[in-house]
Amino acid sequence: MNGLFITLEGPDGSGKSTQIGRIADYLNEQNVSFIQTREPGGTAISDKVRELILDPAHAEMADMTEILLYAASRAQHVHEKIIPALTEGKVVLCDRFVDASIAYQGYGLQVGAETVEAINRYATGGVKPDRSYLIDVSPETGRSRMRARYSGTQLDRIEQKEFSYHNRVREGFHRLAEEQNDRIRLIDGERGTDDVFEEIKKDLEILLNTHFMK
Amino acid sequence: MNGLFITLEGPDGSGKSTQIGRIADYLNEQNVSFIQTREPGGTAISDKVRELILDPAHAEMADMTEILLYAASRAQHVHEKIIPALTEGKVVLCDRFVDASIAYQGYGLQVGAETVEAINRYATGGVKPDRSYLIDVSPETGRSRMRARYSGTQLDRIEQKEFSYHNRVREGFHRLAEEQNDRIRLIDGERGTDDVFEEIKKDLEILLNTHFMK
Repeated sequence: MNGLFITLEGPDGSGKSTQIGRIADYLNEQNVSFIQTREPGGTAISDKVRELILDPAHAEMADMTEILLYAASRAQHVHEKIIPALTEGKVVLCDRFVDASIAYQGYGLQVGAETVEAINRYATGGVKPDRSYLIDVSPETGRSRMRARYSGTQLDRIEQKEFSYHNRVREGFHRLAEEQNDRIRLIDGERGTDDVFEEIKKDLEILLNTHFMK
Repeated sequence: MNGLFITLEGPDGSGKSTQIGRIADYLNEQNVSFIQTREPGGTAISDKVRELILDPAHAEMADMTEILLYAASRAQHVHEKIIPALTEGKVVLCDRFVDASIAYQGYGLQVGAETVEAINRYATGGVKPDRSYLIDVSPETGRSRMRARYSGTQLDRIEQKEFSYHNRVREGFHRLAEEQNDRIRLIDGERGTDDVFEEIKKDLEILLNTHFMK
């Protein structure tokens, strides 16, 4: 597989989706062949699993059920979309991947990073991102941006959780970034969109050059 | 948990459901407090996962997706239904459990028994049946009974698979029965309903006496 697997990570309200749009525009300008996808979801089966996970009616969902559903959705996504694109030599630009599960479920739900990692090793069959941009904002910033965006509409089951949960998630992301600083770039998302993108672009240019020129 | 966890295993067409009905009648006669449940399914969330797995439209489902979906459904079932009933001291009478996953996915899909077992240890949190009745019929018998039962209607995605798959599933069940002969009773399901039930009842009487009299 000679493609390049890039993921964006960060909480809701971090500006992840905006940055993915900017990266996609940049890749288009550079004539780089890529696919853009997201988790949970990305395939017909995964989208159905996503609906099930995020339905606010499923408040009684056990933590392990949620972890295994995310893993199932991911297995399908990797099999049906990510591996074929990487095999064709494309860039895969993915909104969230295993890091999100480790942060949200391993740390946020306090199930343990090792358990979530072990289950996801089965789900991915060992496929790992080449680069992950982790956009860091405080839970307060994330929440207030989400409120502004969806004022008057219902927040989903995961967004409804309390601040202590979101603080644990953030701590989890930070630990991952420390442990795997060769792969993960921790980016300050409290700044404006342009500043954040400039930082990503600088790294991305080097990455693309190194990867596709060799 | 001082309840008693009993599972019935075997292929479609083995007569599992009939035997569960007979066991339920027997437990009622004996005034034994029990719940009757089934996999995949058994809870609102699990039933939605079940629909997703069995939908013939999802032919493109990756094996690992299927394994993780069954595991997710099971995690919810164990958490929401099986553990509470066992904690209340009830008998739990369950149509299929981990053995079915090991046979169908580990052996049938050839993913490997160890992988399926490892994932299911997370799903069940270590909850195991006290007794499993494995009703053994040949794939030919199972298929012809299913055909008779559902003549004219579409067989689901798993029933549609070819005989070599169903032969591997049967071999998997047999191996499990050999390896865990303290828990699993291998029962010849080619006989009539009454004969099969007599064999189960004999074992069940001893089991109930030993368990609830001590």
